[in-house]
Amino acid sequence: MTAMQVIADNLQITRPEIEAALFDGDPEPIRSLARNLEAAGADGIDINSGPLPRNPESGMALLVEAVQSATNCRLLLDTTNPRAIAAGLRQSNRPVIINGISMEPAKLEHILPLAAAFDADVIAYLLDAKSRVPSTEAECYEIAVALLQAGESAGLDKSRLIIDPVVSPLMWENGCARNQTILSVIGNLAEVLGFPVRTIAGISNLTSGRGPASKKRLFEAAYLPMLAAAGLDMALLNVFHDQTVRVARACTTLTEQALFSWAAVD
Amino acid sequence: MTAMQVIADNLQITRPEIEAALFDGDPEPIRSLARNLEAAGADGIDINSGPLPRNPESGMALLVEAVQSATNCRLLLDTTNPRAIAAGLRQSNRPVIINGISMEPAKLEHILPLAAAFDADVIAYLLDAKSRVPSTEAECYEIAVALLQAGESAGLDKSRLIIDPVVSPLMWENGCARNQTILSVIGNLAEVLGFPVRTIAGISNLTSGRGPASKKRLFEAAYLPMLAAAGLDMALLNVFHDQTVRVARACTTLTEQALFSWAAVD
Repeated sequence: MTAMQVIADNLQITRPEIEAALFDGDPEPIRSLARNLEAAGADGIDINSGPLPRNPESGMALLVEAVQSATNCRLLLDTTNPRAIAAGLRQSNRPVIINGISMEPAKLEHILPLAAAFDADVIAYLLDAKSRVPSTEAECYEIAVALLQAGESAGLDKSRLIIDPVVSPLMWENGCARNQTILSVIGNLAEVLGFPVRTIAGISNLTSGRGPASKKRLFEAAYLPMLAAAGLDMALLNVFHDQTVRVARACTTLTEQALFSWAAVD
Repeated sequence: MTAMQVIADNLQITRPEIEAALFDGDPEPIRSLARNLEAAGADGIDINSGPLPRNPESGMALLVEAVQSATNCRLLLDTTNPRAIAAGLRQSNRPVIINGISMEPAKLEHILPLAAAFDADVIAYLLDAKSRVPSTEAECYEIAVALLQAGESAGLDKSRLIIDPVVSPLMWENGCARNQTILSVIGNLAEVLGFPVRTIAGISNLTSGRGPASKKRLFEAAYLPMLAAAGLDMALLNVFHDQTVRVARACTTLTEQALFSWAAVD
């Protein structure tokens, strides 16, 4: 098993300094945040630009250029706007991950072809055509198979697919049961799809809603090792939650099966 | 899945105040520690008395009486001395767990019959006849089957068996690989043995040896959820490691699949 990568979910258009930087065309606040995310342990940074209704090309190009000039992180382009994604793909000087597609027709029609055309990794959400969470584990696999077929029909190499089973908030009535199912899905997807498909999960989603921060951090730190043991490849999380990042690193050591791994960790 | 129980491994004859209390025949230091362990979150207390070469009966009787008079915890009798175990079984006013047996002939001959005679739960270690750790996962299952057969030959109801796959120190050359195997063993034992056998694991063993305390706590907290997700029933640990206990409780919430479980946790 390869090391589980930590992807920062902190770079969001909803942060006032990022929104202002984009409005002003000033890369420095974006670079500064990106540097802090890398220093906090990010292997990759999810660029959550929102839909960028005005100037999607120049907006995403600014974001991509700022992040890649400041860090060695992998880039994830997290927007529903295909023009912004295309601009990000053109601007990037390194392989990027498109985040993402689902069975929603607009995404299959406008975003999936970009992944195929640019030969880029693409995250595919296990959500139905109306972006709803599946109600059974079997339905998760049906959607995964459908996404794989859609990718192959679009000319995407299947090795480009990264499946996101979509962690549910614990505050949902059946949140714990859903998240147990997700562990099983992550563990079984490679066998169901017939190749070692990569997986990603968004940890912040687990504790979305109201609740004390200490309790939220505890549940993040407890669920992440379960995902790691199931074989998760990438954990998307708030990298300023330092205990969560430390747990992620410990999980990597525990799952890598390297020799003398204890001595290798500081 | 039922809640993962937390068993304290803190009550050990190697603690000076416990050794002195036993020497003096004074139950109060034992009661005091037991109360603190229950307050720290222990559902059960492992009474690690050592071999009690002098006065095994009165020594174990004192320990059992002190703990059960001070707490509502389950009791585990952790000694290789069959006379001490028998005395503890007679003294106890509640169901106890014998800790434990292995394929070692002396234990099968002298301790296993006590479990059968008293109809007590008994922990069985996945170690070979010379108390060595198995080198493969297949060997773990062979030993588990042999322990089940030994139990049934001795007249033990199989539901009394609790399997301990024996967590390895991370400092061992192949410690991480072994502990990955243990996750798989815990997940598969019920199917291999053909009934929902319970499991226990000693978490402190993971970080035995030299190393910084903060790193040890981190690895405890990261490995425990992996064990919980695999289906572990009882976690034997230092309950004064409060973050480890908090993680154990969070794991219970995450694995129980109850409805509205978030709101139930404080």
